[in-house]
Amino acid sequence: MKSDSDEPLDLRTLNQPAPETPEDLEDLALGEDYALNPEFVPMVVDALDRGDAERLRDLLGALHPADIADLMGFLSADGREELLPHLDPEALAEILSELDTEIREEVLEHVPSAILAKALGEMESDDAADVVDDLEEDKKAQVLAAMPEMERAAIETSLAYGDETAGRLMQREVVAAPQFWTVGQTIDHLRRESDELPELFFDVYVVDPSYKPVGAAPVSHLLRSNRSTPLAQIMEQVTEIPVDMDQEEVAYIFDKYHLISAPVVEPGGRLVGQITVDDIVGVIQEEREEDILALAGVTDVGRDAGVWGIVRSRLPWLLINTLTAALSVSVIRAFEGEIVKLALLAVLMPIVASLGGNAGTQTLAVAVRALASRELSAVNAVRTVSREMMVGLLNGLCLALATGTALFVLFHDIRLSIAFGLALVLNLFVASLAGALVPLALEKAGRDPAVSSSIFVTFVTDFTGFFGFLGLAALILL
Amino acid sequence: MKSDSDEPLDLRTLNQPAPETPEDLEDLALGEDYALNPEFVPMVVDALDRGDAERLRDLLGALHPADIADLMGFLSADGREELLPHLDPEALAEILSELDTEIREEVLEHVPSAILAKALGEMESDDAADVVDDLEEDKKAQVLAAMPEMERAAIETSLAYGDETAGRLMQREVVAAPQFWTVGQTIDHLRRESDELPELFFDVYVVDPSYKPVGAAPVSHLLRSNRSTPLAQIMEQVTEIPVDMDQEEVAYIFDKYHLISAPVVEPGGRLVGQITVDDIVGVIQEEREEDILALAGVTDVGRDAGVWGIVRSRLPWLLINTLTAALSVSVIRAFEGEIVKLALLAVLMPIVASLGGNAGTQTLAVAVRALASRELSAVNAVRTVSREMMVGLLNGLCLALATGTALFVLFHDIRLSIAFGLALVLNLFVASLAGALVPLALEKAGRDPAVSSSIFVTFVTDFTGFFGFLGLAALILL
Repeated sequence: MKSDSDEPLDLRTLNQPAPETPEDLEDLALGEDYALNPEFVPMVVDALDRGDAERLRDLLGALHPADIADLMGFLSADGREELLPHLDPEALAEILSELDTEIREEVLEHVPSAILAKALGEMESDDAADVVDDLEEDKKAQVLAAMPEMERAAIETSLAYGDETAGRLMQREVVAAPQFWTVGQTIDHLRRESDELPELFFDVYVVDPSYKPVGAAPVSHLLRSNRSTPLAQIMEQVTEIPVDMDQEEVAYIFDKYHLISAPVVEPGGRLVGQITVDDIVGVIQEEREEDILALAGVTDVGRDAGVWGIVRSRLPWLLINTLTAALSVSVIRAFEGEIVKLALLAVLMPIVASLGGNAGTQTLAVAVRALASRELSAVNAVRTVSREMMVGLLNGLCLALATGTALFVLFHDIRLSIAFGLALVLNLFVASLAGALVPLALEKAGRDPAVSSSIFVTFVTDFTGFFGFLGLAALILL
Repeated sequence: MKSDSDEPLDLRTLNQPAPETPEDLEDLALGEDYALNPEFVPMVVDALDRGDAERLRDLLGALHPADIADLMGFLSADGREELLPHLDPEALAEILSELDTEIREEVLEHVPSAILAKALGEMESDDAADVVDDLEEDKKAQVLAAMPEMERAAIETSLAYGDETAGRLMQREVVAAPQFWTVGQTIDHLRRESDELPELFFDVYVVDPSYKPVGAAPVSHLLRSNRSTPLAQIMEQVTEIPVDMDQEEVAYIFDKYHLISAPVVEPGGRLVGQITVDDIVGVIQEEREEDILALAGVTDVGRDAGVWGIVRSRLPWLLINTLTAALSVSVIRAFEGEIVKLALLAVLMPIVASLGGNAGTQTLAVAVRALASRELSAVNAVRTVSREMMVGLLNGLCLALATGTALFVLFHDIRLSIAFGLALVLNLFVASLAGALVPLALEKAGRDPAVSSSIFVTFVTDFTGFFGFLGLAALILL
């Protein structure tokens, strides 16, 4: 799959008609790190521009559907539309599952309903539901009407569950067996029903007569046990996932218990589907991205959003920040007299505010991470907050000592050093307190601790920084 | 596993001797969200204090080893030491695999070498190597000496691979079959060798005579195929992982191709082990945490670090920030004369700097996320940076309009509004540029774009904010 040579690619030869074999193209398509080679994209664009269908087939043939989805992300909207007719209809199903929502919505507009209905039939029910959910109402009706009754029902049931719940994440295709079966009976059944089974499965769920899961037999255990072994003997305990559980909790459970698949049950306990770990990897990536962006005050609009879409996703946060900044600097107005007397105060006050902000952000990031991994909870909240307060005090003292000394060397005024140092200690203490308490309070209120916590913390540290330093300076210096 | 009742727990009854059944305890141990119940931890502490071995056995019996590892995180170091002798020796192996490094290092000091050697024998080779790596040199030698030759060799081989590489992540236990075997021959082999197989496996790797993987037969395909089917017919293409690949790249590949397991190969192509997706979930969680913490300037020291440990992990970043802050405020000194003439400048300049910082952080978070998911690469770097510059300009214009108007209402000075607005546009433009270019440059230099990028960006936006606003004010206003 990968090139063994580290030599740089010669771009002059790449655009020539091509004496390349399919293997050459595969080597060329992906870099050492399995990411698309930057050189490969212009080759596709070139073939699209020339309308060279044969060349396109060779190029796309070198790619896994996931790589074609990646490739589409690097093309323009026009390029994607031109590429669509060149895609193998079966591959389209897989590619659609891989595309980012924003790009998928746009691509779906250009896929005829009949082809789409066929592609959806190839997908697992959870992926198909995701795609249908992205369709416009008219097209959704058309596409569903073009699908066989069973498949349509599966998708409609899936869509009835809330966004980001286990019900939406699960696939309805499961392998279940009654608890009185033997390994041999189960294998015979699987061989008979081969066409009806999910493409891949990792557990056979053992169910009681009311279809409630009582255990799971890992397929590797089935394979290595004798035919006469009862399922009940090799089955393991299962962790049932309620159909309305939030996907972040599902991911936590998969991670904690190292699950490969888990049965999803209705409120009554009946087995209705399963979630497999490969879906969870996607959820974890998503949640990871959400936390990083939320802490920075951005909502994800996808890589292909237009400039105005991005502006709309960022401007509200900046406007809120303008208001809180206006609020915290308003305290400076009360000290204008002092600043006129000693303009150096205006020079130094941003340092106090900025270091408080940094210390607060550190504590905040640690707290958000610990809350997400459940390392921080009601059990150790008090201990954690007191420890953070100690850390804030000590960091403040160390910084005060360092900067106080530096200021004394520069300005030979011990009172200035003292006012600055005390303000730093105060602000770092407050920063640690706020950095730990704000996310804890948001979590307790049932809110996402990553969203909007940094705005509170920055406001607190700015305000304390300005007020503390100017106030102490007014008291001690002037 | 979970309580069906939503009624609050009555703490008075919880600490009474206990007419509870094992099921009651299980209900009590975990909350709805499968996290440890805050009420459960004091019950364990109480039993430890009273030295009530029977009660402890009941309490621990209600927990999965992963939950006991969680529980240990909430206990004090003394509590953990007291708990150790009460742990079932087999469970110890699983618990050790689950513990955070810092806590594990401390716990390992109190586990006798003989017991530890036994526990290591129960683990998969990758987990066992991780534990051995945490031992002090003396104890490591003792423990390895107490292990059977084969197990010791496996651990030593694993430790020879670099930290965070595929070699360290992989388990050496794999199931391989020659390509000329049928499904029936393979199943017979698995039944015969049942004792030697990994506890769970998802693929049988099909190898050529030189033990190079040529494909993989998913176990679910083995189960549903007829005994006479040749392996070569049901096997699928494999994605080989080189033994020295970085674990973050391995995680990227698993996520991209939805892999459940993948063969790990030596430079010559020989199969030496496998990586399974449950190990990857851990890696993704780790990388997620690293990015969030790195952007905030913290290194992870674990939840049980002492106050000084935490101070040491955060103070260096704050000291660097002090220096960059000193550098950027030094520009204010040049404008002390202007500030004395119009103290309002000192009030307004932090807003310009702060909004620039926020806009820069937004762009930075988006860029770091996009780089991590390979959505941003050499292919679209120029397009992304130009789009960010446009976003910065537009955000700046919108903010300038809003704040300029507000300032005019407050101070009736159009020149003040203009100087402030222009400075905002300038700083938001620069912020977007820096927020996109800094992580791209770090990535290109082979560095982690999340580490230390925020310090550059904040420095740039502070400097531009102060210099831009005060400079423009001096030109336009005074």
